[in-house]
Amino acid sequence: MTQSLDRWRQVPRDPDDDTPRLECGVFGVFDTDGASAITALGLHALQHRGQEACGIASFDGQGFHTERHMGHVGDAFAGGDLMDRLPGQSAIGHTRYSTAGGSFIRNVQPMFADLEAGGLAIAHNGNLTNFLTLRQQLVAEGSIFQSTSDSEVILHLIARSRRARMVDKFIDALSVIEGGYALVALSNKKLIGVRDPLGIRPLVLGDLDGKAVLASETCALDMIGATFVRDIEHGEMVIIDHDGIESLRPFPAARARPCIFEYVYFARPDSVVNGRSVYEVRKRMGRKLAMESHVDVDVIVPVPDSGVPAALGYAQEVGVPFEMGIIRNHYVGRTFIQPTQGARETGVRMKLSPNRSVLAGKRVMLIDDSIVRGTNSVRVARMVREAGAAEVHLRSASPPIMWPDYYGIDMPDRDKLLAANHTVDEIAKILEVDSMGYLSVDGLYWAMESAPRDPEHPQFTDHYFTGDYPTRLLDREIAEGRNETSERQLSFLVDA
Amino acid sequence: MTQSLDRWRQVPRDPDDDTPRLECGVFGVFDTDGASAITALGLHALQHRGQEACGIASFDGQGFHTERHMGHVGDAFAGGDLMDRLPGQSAIGHTRYSTAGGSFIRNVQPMFADLEAGGLAIAHNGNLTNFLTLRQQLVAEGSIFQSTSDSEVILHLIARSRRARMVDKFIDALSVIEGGYALVALSNKKLIGVRDPLGIRPLVLGDLDGKAVLASETCALDMIGATFVRDIEHGEMVIIDHDGIESLRPFPAARARPCIFEYVYFARPDSVVNGRSVYEVRKRMGRKLAMESHVDVDVIVPVPDSGVPAALGYAQEVGVPFEMGIIRNHYVGRTFIQPTQGARETGVRMKLSPNRSVLAGKRVMLIDDSIVRGTNSVRVARMVREAGAAEVHLRSASPPIMWPDYYGIDMPDRDKLLAANHTVDEIAKILEVDSMGYLSVDGLYWAMESAPRDPEHPQFTDHYFTGDYPTRLLDREIAEGRNETSERQLSFLVDA
Amino acid sequence: MTQSLDRWRQVPRDPDDDTPRLECGVFGVFDTDGASAITALGLHALQHRGQEACGIASFDGQGFHTERHMGHVGDAFAGGDLMDRLPGQSAIGHTRYSTAGGSFIRNVQPMFADLEAGGLAIAHNGNLTNFLTLRQQLVAEGSIFQSTSDSEVILHLIARSRRARMVDKFIDALSVIEGGYALVALSNKKLIGVRDPLGIRPLVLGDLDGKAVLASETCALDMIGATFVRDIEHGEMVIIDHDGIESLRPFPAARARPCIFEYVYFARPDSVVNGRSVYEVRKRMGRKLAMESHVDVDVIVPVPDSGVPAALGYAQEVGVPFEMGIIRNHYVGRTFIQPTQGARETGVRMKLSPNRSVLAGKRVMLIDDSIVRGTNSVRVARMVREAGAAEVHLRSASPPIMWPDYYGIDMPDRDKLLAANHTVDEIAKILEVDSMGYLSVDGLYWAMESAPRDPEHPQFTDHYFTGDYPTRLLDREIAEGRNETSERQLSFLVDA
Amino acid sequence: MTQSLDRWRQVPRDPDDDTPRLECGVFGVFDTDGASAITALGLHALQHRGQEACGIASFDGQGFHTERHMGHVGDAFAGGDLMDRLPGQSAIGHTRYSTAGGSFIRNVQPMFADLEAGGLAIAHNGNLTNFLTLRQQLVAEGSIFQSTSDSEVILHLIARSRRARMVDKFIDALSVIEGGYALVALSNKKLIGVRDPLGIRPLVLGDLDGKAVLASETCALDMIGATFVRDIEHGEMVIIDHDGIESLRPFPAARARPCIFEYVYFARPDSVVNGRSVYEVRKRMGRKLAMESHVDVDVIVPVPDSGVPAALGYAQEVGVPFEMGIIRNHYVGRTFIQPTQGARETGVRMKLSPNRSVLAGKRVMLIDDSIVRGTNSVRVARMVREAGAAEVHLRSASPPIMWPDYYGIDMPDRDKLLAANHTVDEIAKILEVDSMGYLSVDGLYWAMESAPRDPEHPQFTDHYFTGDYPTRLLDREIAEGRNETSERQLSFLVDA
Repeated sequence: MTQSLDRWRQVPRDPDDDTPRLECGVFGVFDTDGASAITALGLHALQHRGQEACGIASFDGQGFHTERHMGHVGDAFAGGDLMDRLPGQSAIGHTRYSTAGGSFIRNVQPMFADLEAGGLAIAHNGNLTNFLTLRQQLVAEGSIFQSTSDSEVILHLIARSRRARMVDKFIDALSVIEGGYALVALSNKKLIGVRDPLGIRPLVLGDLDGKAVLASETCALDMIGATFVRDIEHGEMVIIDHDGIESLRPFPAARARPCIFEYVYFARPDSVVNGRSVYEVRKRMGRKLAMESHVDVDVIVPVPDSGVPAALGYAQEVGVPFEMGIIRNHYVGRTFIQPTQGARETGVRMKLSPNRSVLAGKRVMLIDDSIVRGTNSVRVARMVREAGAAEVHLRSASPPIMWPDYYGIDMPDRDKLLAANHTVDEIAKILEVDSMGYLSVDGLYWAMESAPRDPEHPQFTDHYFTGDYPTRLLDREIAEGRNETSERQLSFLVDA
Repeated sequence: MTQSLDRWRQVPRDPDDDTPRLECGVFGVFDTDGASAITALGLHALQHRGQEACGIASFDGQGFHTERHMGHVGDAFAGGDLMDRLPGQSAIGHTRYSTAGGSFIRNVQPMFADLEAGGLAIAHNGNLTNFLTLRQQLVAEGSIFQSTSDSEVILHLIARSRRARMVDKFIDALSVIEGGYALVALSNKKLIGVRDPLGIRPLVLGDLDGKAVLASETCALDMIGATFVRDIEHGEMVIIDHDGIESLRPFPAARARPCIFEYVYFARPDSVVNGRSVYEVRKRMGRKLAMESHVDVDVIVPVPDSGVPAALGYAQEVGVPFEMGIIRNHYVGRTFIQPTQGARETGVRMKLSPNRSVLAGKRVMLIDDSIVRGTNSVRVARMVREAGAAEVHLRSASPPIMWPDYYGIDMPDRDKLLAANHTVDEIAKILEVDSMGYLSVDGLYWAMESAPRDPEHPQFTDHYFTGDYPTRLLDREIAEGRNETSERQLSFLVDA
Repeated sequence: MTQSLDRWRQVPRDPDDDTPRLECGVFGVFDTDGASAITALGLHALQHRGQEACGIASFDGQGFHTERHMGHVGDAFAGGDLMDRLPGQSAIGHTRYSTAGGSFIRNVQPMFADLEAGGLAIAHNGNLTNFLTLRQQLVAEGSIFQSTSDSEVILHLIARSRRARMVDKFIDALSVIEGGYALVALSNKKLIGVRDPLGIRPLVLGDLDGKAVLASETCALDMIGATFVRDIEHGEMVIIDHDGIESLRPFPAARARPCIFEYVYFARPDSVVNGRSVYEVRKRMGRKLAMESHVDVDVIVPVPDSGVPAALGYAQEVGVPFEMGIIRNHYVGRTFIQPTQGARETGVRMKLSPNRSVLAGKRVMLIDDSIVRGTNSVRVARMVREAGAAEVHLRSASPPIMWPDYYGIDMPDRDKLLAANHTVDEIAKILEVDSMGYLSVDGLYWAMESAPRDPEHPQFTDHYFTGDYPTRLLDREIAEGRNETSERQLSFLVDA
Repeated sequence: MTQSLDRWRQVPRDPDDDTPRLECGVFGVFDTDGASAITALGLHALQHRGQEACGIASFDGQGFHTERHMGHVGDAFAGGDLMDRLPGQSAIGHTRYSTAGGSFIRNVQPMFADLEAGGLAIAHNGNLTNFLTLRQQLVAEGSIFQSTSDSEVILHLIARSRRARMVDKFIDALSVIEGGYALVALSNKKLIGVRDPLGIRPLVLGDLDGKAVLASETCALDMIGATFVRDIEHGEMVIIDHDGIESLRPFPAARARPCIFEYVYFARPDSVVNGRSVYEVRKRMGRKLAMESHVDVDVIVPVPDSGVPAALGYAQEVGVPFEMGIIRNHYVGRTFIQPTQGARETGVRMKLSPNRSVLAGKRVMLIDDSIVRGTNSVRVARMVREAGAAEVHLRSASPPIMWPDYYGIDMPDRDKLLAANHTVDEIAKILEVDSMGYLSVDGLYWAMESAPRDPEHPQFTDHYFTGDYPTRLLDREIAEGRNETSERQLSFLVDA
C-alpha cells in the first residue's frame, strides 16, 4: 500500500463528530498468573482512550508473544483461549484511537523488536515533537522503518545505542526524544514505565495482590481489582523486576505540568488523575460555569454522556431541574447514507435524539464539556429547538479552544477551531442559540482546586486555551521553516 | 446443522446479564425514494429492540430484494451502495434480539416467499402461542419448514389459503394465529401492518412527506424526520397502497390490553407509546416508588442507563441529590476470561464501574428499572459497598416479576425469577442490601396515569407481575399435557 | 437477492472455455464407520463431475447433519474434525459443476427436508425435463420453493404424497418426474438409489467390506478401496437398509439408452461405465478416427488432458510419434486482465502453452476429444502455428456436436454450436487448420464395441450428434409454445 | 506470533509428497503499460516454482505499490482492478514455494524498503549460504529484522552502505553475500537483475515490444508474448533504465555452473534453460535410461506428470507402447482424514489412480523423474500391482539423489535420502518392484548434450548426485562447529 508520512495530516472524520480524540491508553503487568487476561481487562477499561485498534505483548519466560487487532478489546481479546495465545506472567497492552480508514494499521502497538540485547516490546501514549527529525537521522544511518509510530523510533534508537545494558540503552533513547508521552515496555527481565519530563500524559502504579501494575488511568486498576498506589511522577522511569521496583530520574529536573484536557474530556469520570476525581472536577466546572454565566431557564440538559457531570454540578448550583432531554443512542455503526432531503440532519440523530416530553415549551440550558469546531453543537441546538424548546442556551464547561495540540490529541488546525476565529456573540449566532457561554481559564483552575494560573510556570498543560505550549515543537518549526511536508513511503518488509 | 425445535429453550446468556429481552422491532415504508435507506435509519432507532440480527426487504416495481445479517444495523446496512443492493420505493425491516450462539440465524427476518399470488415479505415482533400446533398441521399437509420463525408459519398459511386475493389470504392466516404480535408485510402492491387483537405489541403509523411509515416505536419516526400520525389500534390491519390507507378489523372485537413492560424496560425513553411518554412514565414510577418506600439516604444513584429516569423522578420527589455513582462502560464485547481469583467479580465491572468520589462514606439509594433473577443486582450492590458506601439501599421501579412471558419477551422460567420464590425481606438479604423495595402494581398503574387496575378487564398486559395472561397458551398447555418437547429438525433446502 | 428462474439461461463462462459441462456427481454409503469421511473421498474422486460446490448429509441414528460449500471437496471436507461435524454411519454426497457467478448457491445439494414421515436428504445428477411444469403445480398448491433445484421438486412431491411409507411416497414422486437422472437419498432407515427409466445418467453399486456404496462412477469406488458390484440398471430403484439390498422397478419397462457423452468427455478415463473402460473406448475412438481421416504428418499431439487417450490410439494406429507438443498449466485461477494488445491471445496460454521443441518445423496432427463452439480450437491451432508448426491438422474424436442437451449437460444453444452451422470445410477455414476431420457416428458406435446404431431403438443417448432425443421435453415444448420464460423469484425463508 | 529462526528446519509436509521443491520464481518488467498485469501473467507461468505465496511491487513514477498474498497468482492477482491496485509502468514479482503451515508468511516477497537513497523493492530466488552470519552482524549494529528472508538481509546491507548511488550500494551488498541466487530489484529509476557468480539459479532476458523483461524461465516470456533475448550470464548484473540496458560484472570471474536439477525436475518442459529445451533433455534422459537398464515389459507407464517426457523417450527408444496407466487427479486439497483401515493407502490415490484396463495382466515399466525418499514410489508401485500388473519395474530418469541442497531447493537431510543409505538392490526390495534402475551421472551429462563431466571443473551444479558443492557453506560450517541452532525471535514492528 502506498502511504505518505504526513504526521500532521487530518484523518477523515465524520463531519458531525466534533470531539477531540486522544491517542492511546497503555497498560502493563509483571509476574502474575493470567497476565494477558489481566491486560485485556485493563485495556477494556481504557477503551475510551482509543477505539481503533488494540494489542497485547506477553513474555512467557522463553519468548515473546504478540497480537494486534483493529477494533475493540472486547472483540479482539475475549475468549477462553487468550492465555494459550498470549501465555506468560508479564504483559503490556495498548489501545489506539479510531480513524475512519484503515490507513494506520501499521502503527498498531505494542511493537516488538528482537534486539541484540534481547527482545523488547513497547507501547506508547502521546506524541514525540521531534519524531520526524529523529526518523530522518535514523533512515540516513540505515534504519528501515515499517510504520510512522513513535514507538518504532524509540526501538531503533535503543537498537543503535552503544550502551551495554537494556535499561541504559533505553535511557539513551529517552535522552533524545521530546514531547509528551507515557511509555510501558517489557523486556525478558523487566517491566518499564516512563512519564515525560513534564508529566503531560498520565501513568499510574497499582498493586494487584502484591504485584506491580501500570496503567494510564485508575479505572483500569478498578477493573482488575487492583489498588491504586501512586501516580508515576513527571520525568520518572520505574523499573519493575523480580527484585522489586526501582525509580530513576533520567531527565533534568522540571516542574510538573500535566494535561488539563484529561479532566475536561479524556479521562473516565470514575478515574482519579493526579490525585483529583475527574467526576468531581467536572461537577465543579459546571458549578463555576453556573456562577459565571447563568441565565433563567426551566431545565438543565446535558449533551450526553460527557456533559452529564458538569450539568449536574450546574443544576445543583442553580437549583433548576436536571433532565435527560437528549437521549444518546448506544448503537452506532458506520455512516448511514442520507435517504432524502426531507430526512436531513440525520447525522446527529443517529447518535442523539430529542426527548420531546422534556424539551417542548421549555427554556433549555444545554451543557456540553467542550466545543471544538461547533459542527455538532449547532445540530444539537437545532434539534432541541425543533423538538419544541422555547429557548435554547448553550454553555461549554471548558474555556474556548483556540490552539491545536501536538502531544497526542487529534484536533483540527487553528483555522477550524470555532473559538479561535469568532467572538462569543458570533458563536451564539453561528450555533443558533439564544445565549452562549464558556467557562473561564480561571474558572477551570478553580474547578481543579488549584492556585490561580501562574503565567511564568503554569501548573497545567493548557495551550488549547492559552497558546502556551509546554515544550519546543521541533518538527513543527522545521516544517514551517521549509514550508513543505516530508513525504516518504513506508517500508514493507512484511505486510500488514 | 442439527437444530432442535425447542421454542422454550433458553439460549445461553451471560450469567451477569439479568435483563429481560424483547424479540424484535419492525419498520416499513411505502412509495418513497430511498426506501431501504430510510428503513435502515428506522431500524437503527429500533436497535434496542433486537441486537442479534437485522434484515431489510425492498420491492423495486419488478422484483423483491432482501438482505439479512447477524449483528447491528449500523454494520449491516450502512454504506453508500445500500440503494443499489436494495433498490425500490418500498421496504420493510426487522431487528432481532441478541443470543449468545448463532443457533437461530435461520430465523432472521424479513422472510420472503414467492407465492402463487406473487411475492410477499413479512416481518414480525411478538410470539404466536399456537405456533407448534400450527406448524405440526402444516408439516402433515406437506409444507417444508426452514426455520422456527412465526413469520414462516404465517407465510405457509397464506400460501395454502384458498382465497383469491393476497389480502384475503392474509386475513385467512390471521384468523388461526394466536398470541401477541405486530406484523409488517410487503407485497408487490401493498404495505400491510397488523397489531394483534389485544394490541399487546406496539405499532405506530407515521407520515414522511405525505408517505406512510410503520414502526414499532415513535423514536424511529423521529430518526427519519417523519411525524407521528397515530398508533395502529389493537386488532387493526392497515393496508397501504397507491390509493391510500385502508383500515380493516379482521378480528372479533376486544378491549385493548397493551404490554406494560414496554414502559418499564423495553421502549426507548424518548418514545411515545400508546399516547404516553415513556420517559415521563418512568419518572412517575420513580416518584411513586419514593412515596411508597423511601428511607433516609445521602445520594440517589441510578443503575445506568435504564434506571436513570426513575432515579431522577425519585430524587426530585425526595429532594436528595441525584448522582452518577455508577459509570456505564460503553464498550462491551464478548465475555472476557477471568484472570485470577483476586480479580473476581469482573463480570459486572466490565459493564459498570463504581464512581468512588460519589459513593465513599455515603448512604446510597440505588434505583433499578426491574429485577429478574437478581444476579446482576447483587453484584452491583456489592460493588457499591466495596467502593465505600456506608449503606446500600435498592429500589425496583417495577413491581416484583413473578411470571414468565409467552408474547415475545425472553425471560427465565418461574423457578429462576427472584420475586417468585422469595419475600422482600429475603430478597434484601440475598441481594446484600440494607433495605429493599418494589413499586406496587397500583403504583405502576398510577405512574401510567391510568385508572386503578380492573381485575375483570385489566387495562394492560401485566402477567409478569400478576400471572393474569391475556390469551390462552395452546402450545404451552399441550406441552404440559404430554410432558414432552416436540423435537424436530429443520429442513435445509438451502444453507444459512 | 433477486433471482430469476430461467432454467435455460446460460451462466456466463470464460469465452475461451469451450468444454461441455456436466451437472453433478453423487455418492452414498450405508451403515459404515466413518461414513462422512468415506463420502468426502468418494466425492473427491467425482470432482471432475462438478467443481462449483459440494455437500454431504449424514445420519447418526438420531438426527441428520448437513454441510454444503462452494468450491472443491478437498477444501470443504478435508480436516480432522469431519466426523465431528458430520457424524453417523450413513451419508450421501454431491458435487456440482462450476459456474462463473455464485448465483446458484441455493441449489447446492444434498437438500434435507424434515417431512411428516421423517427426515430425508436427497442428491441428484441430471435434469428433469418437466421441472417447470411440476414446480408451477406445486406453488399453486401452496409449496414455497427455496431453490431451482430438481431435488427440491422431488422433496415437495414426497412431502405431499398421500402414501404412508417413505418409500411409497418416493415412488409416488418418481412417477411424475421425467428426464435423465441418477438419485441418491438417505432417510433415517434407508439409503436409496434410483436411475432414470432409460439409464441416461450413470450410477454404480460398490461393496466396501460388505457394506453398500452408491456412486456415479467406478473411480469413486477405487478411491475408497471398494470393489465394483454392478451398475444400477436403467429404471431400477435400490433400497439399502440393515436387512440388505432390495431392487424395485417402479417404472414401466423400457430399453436402456445410456448417455454416450460420458465416454466422449465426462467420465474419468480410469472409470468403467456400463461395463466399458472409458480409456479403452477413447483409444478406440482415436484408432477409428485415424482409419477414417488420417493425412501424412510428423507428430501426433493431443490437446491435453482429455485428448490424450484418443491421440495415443491414433498414433499407435498410424505409427507416427506421439508427443506432448502442448503443455497444460495446472494452475488456473480467475480470469487475468489482458495487459496490452501485444499480449493478445493470453487466454488460451494461461491454460495451455506450446512446446516449441516439438512443434517447430513439424507437420502437426492435433487430436481433441470434441469441439463445441470452436472458440478454444482456433486459439490452440493458432498457438501451434505461431510456435513454428509447418502444418496444423485437427481431428475431433467425437462426431460433430449439433444439438443441445436437456439431461444435465451445460451446452450452448444450437446457434452457437459450430458443427450445427458449418460444413467441415468451412470449419477448417474458421479454425485456421490445414485439414479438419470428425469421427463418424458409426465410428463412435464401433469404438463402443457396439452393434451399428439402430435408428428405431438407438443403443445410446446420442442426440448431441443425431438430434434424436430419448424423452419428450415438456418444459421446452411449453416454453416454445408460449414463447416466454417463466420468471419467478426464489423464496428466501432463510438466507444462503 | 512466536517464530524461531531455524533456517534448516524442515517444514511439515504431506508424508506422501516425495518431490523436491524449489524456492521461488522471479519476474520483472520496465517501462511498459500494464506492468502489473504483465507481471501477474508472468508469475502465473512461474507458478510451478512456488505455490505458497506470491507478490508484486510496482512503481508509478511517484511511489511504490506492493501486494503480497498467500496462495496462487490466479487467485491473488486476477481481476479487473489490478492496475488500479498496482499502477505504474514498472513492476517486479515473486512466487514462493508451498509449505504446510503459514509460518513463513512474513517471508513473502517482493520486499520494499524506503531507504535514504529512495525506495527499493527486491525479489529473490535461491539461498544465501552466509545468511545467518550476515544477519547476526546486522542485528549487532542495530538493524531490526522482520523476517528470515534473504531479501531482507540484502536490503539492510544496501541501507547501511556508505556508497552514494543506489547501484553502488547494491554492489556493496552483493560483495558480501554468498550462495546461489537470481535477483530482480526495482528502484524509482531502474530495474536490476543479478545472477550469482556461478549462475546456479536461472534468469533470462526477454523483449516485449522493445521493452526489457526479466524472468526465471522462458515459459514466462511465452505467456506474455515476449521474445527470448538471452540468458543473464553467471555473475552478471543487468541495469535497465530509460537509457537502455547496461551489463556489469561486479564479481570476480568464475566458470558457469548452472543447476542441473532445473532440467531433472524444476523447470517447465516447455522452457528453454541455458539454451537447452527441457522437454528434449528429459526425453534424452529417458532414451539413455532405456539404453542403460531396459528389461522386457509390455507397457511403458509414466508417473504423471513429471515422468511423461522421459517415459516417451524411453518408449520410443525401445519400441514398447507408452500408455497412461496412471491417471493424475487434478483436484487436490488439504489432507483428507482416513476413514477406515479398509480404505488404507488413500493418500496416493487422492493424487494418482490406476487405470486398470492398461495395467491388468501386464508387465509394467514405471518411469519417474527422480526419487527422493521413496515414500511415494512404494505407494505407486503397490497401487499398480494391486491393479493387476504381472510385473512392476521402476526406473528413475535421474541419478541417485544422495546429498541435500543449500541453494534454494527444499530437500530432506541425508539420512532421509533413499539412495544415500541403500544399494539399488535394496531399493528394489524397499520399493517392492521387480527391478530398479537409475540413470548414471554420465548418462545425465549425455542427456544434456554436454561433454563428459569434468571432475576439476564440473559443468553443472550436481552435488545432489555427487556431493560436490559449488561454494563454501559458511552458515552450515558454523552451525556444525558449535552444534547449535541460532534461535531468535522475529521483530514485530508490524503484524503479518
